[in-house]
Amino acid sequence: MDKLYVIKIGGNIVDNVQTLDDFLHQFSQLEGLKILVHGGGKIATEIAKKLNIKQTMIDGRRVTDRETLDVVTMVYGGLINKNLVAKLNSFGLKAIGLTGADGQMIRAHKRFVEQIDYGFAGDIDDVNGELIDGFLKSELTPVIAPLTSDASGSMLNTNADTMAQAIAIGMSNYYDVDLIYSFEKAGVLLDVEDEATSIPRLDPLYYKILKQENKIFDGMIPKLDNAFFAIERGVKTVVIGNGMMLKELVTGKKGTLIFNPLI
Amino acid sequence: MDKLYVIKIGGNIVDNVQTLDDFLHQFSQLEGLKILVHGGGKIATEIAKKLNIKQTMIDGRRVTDRETLDVVTMVYGGLINKNLVAKLNSFGLKAIGLTGADGQMIRAHKRFVEQIDYGFAGDIDDVNGELIDGFLKSELTPVIAPLTSDASGSMLNTNADTMAQAIAIGMSNYYDVDLIYSFEKAGVLLDVEDEATSIPRLDPLYYKILKQENKIFDGMIPKLDNAFFAIERGVKTVVIGNGMMLKELVTGKKGTLIFNPLI
Repeated sequence: MDKLYVIKIGGNIVDNVQTLDDFLHQFSQLEGLKILVHGGGKIATEIAKKLNIKQTMIDGRRVTDRETLDVVTMVYGGLINKNLVAKLNSFGLKAIGLTGADGQMIRAHKRFVEQIDYGFAGDIDDVNGELIDGFLKSELTPVIAPLTSDASGSMLNTNADTMAQAIAIGMSNYYDVDLIYSFEKAGVLLDVEDEATSIPRLDPLYYKILKQENKIFDGMIPKLDNAFFAIERGVKTVVIGNGMMLKELVTGKKGTLIFNPLI
Repeated sequence: MDKLYVIKIGGNIVDNVQTLDDFLHQFSQLEGLKILVHGGGKIATEIAKKLNIKQTMIDGRRVTDRETLDVVTMVYGGLINKNLVAKLNSFGLKAIGLTGADGQMIRAHKRFVEQIDYGFAGDIDDVNGELIDGFLKSELTPVIAPLTSDASGSMLNTNADTMAQAIAIGMSNYYDVDLIYSFEKAGVLLDVEDEATSIPRLDPLYYKILKQENKIFDGMIPKLDNAFFAIERGVKTVVIGNGMMLKELVTGKKGTLIFNPLI
């Protein structure tokens, strides 16, 4: 099978014009098939603030009321997505900006309310890998915003790490998929203040021990859970690290490699 | 050649939840291949107002400064486009939301400054009909926002009527194209206050006479110029009329038919 990179960018890389430009240039230079999944939470929070729409975060996840849904639909699906597309095209790609709604690419449902009501938050049911493969075969590079929709026609705010994981798994029927979670840190850090403490390799047993010792930064846990889940479901490689070193992440020279010795 | 409908919606239809829903239901029921091009200027103006970004209109066209470009990119490319897609999908289509930037579908340049500087306004250079045809052949229904991008990677605000015209012309190499300009009026009106004065058929000579007699509403002139231009460049039929009567527009029972007896 051919290789496919599914690359998530988030955090401070999207928010900063200069780092974003550098990242996109590296991304455009990457040989072979690739998909970009982006976040953009900080920009959404800024725009919501300007519009006087109060934002509530619970465990780092946004509570998406009706007005906030409009904000994330605008900011993720429009402002960020289309600017990424235009910029990548200026670097020679044929990028196509998509949400899970487009072409019914990702079917989702509004998250069921248990202890917490996250509002219009989307949980993914399935990914139409054939549709995405069609885009790749047409030499298009999908650039995917963290939004899905449900059967009733509502847009849904969807976690970008989970989107990347679901897409990587969905595409692993067609390709050898490398999933790269890129952000502003060197990798999974033992000390969140010290970039030198990046762990080169992490397996489920070591992860369990580190969690028990409270050595994993809280915000990193959902990302790592997504990473191990992806490995269990057919994704070949998951690497977490600094998007400014995309080339080194892809070649395994930098970042934290997530692996499972039992697979 | 197969038939293709290129349908533009604008004006009050997009702004009103109920009329929009009715329109989208009719659109989804329309048999055969179709493309939707949408506006959304009133919503963009509202959001700009909430964000304290002053809007300047000259002859009904928006002056697009840097901040306004962000607003229209958000509102057209995100908020309106993705909600249209999600709703059409709930009616059984496989709609795909696009701007001119996506897949380099429409190449454009920033409008040259003559008397008036319209800022980040896009003028269209060419339409990639092959790309759009690929979407149609994959059973996708393109839903297109009035945005393009230039070679430097900037998004550009682009007139939706002109987008629809350029797409209709571009697709007339592949299909028998009917271009429908739908809005909240019954057609081209002799008296803008009286729906009963809708003209059934309009050719270039009659148009010239009506313009000389100042009987054409100013806002209608760019739309009509677009319509006649489309007919001259290979589009089979152009109809202008009320989007709430989409079925009747498509079958020629309502609206104003634009034609050129010399073609």
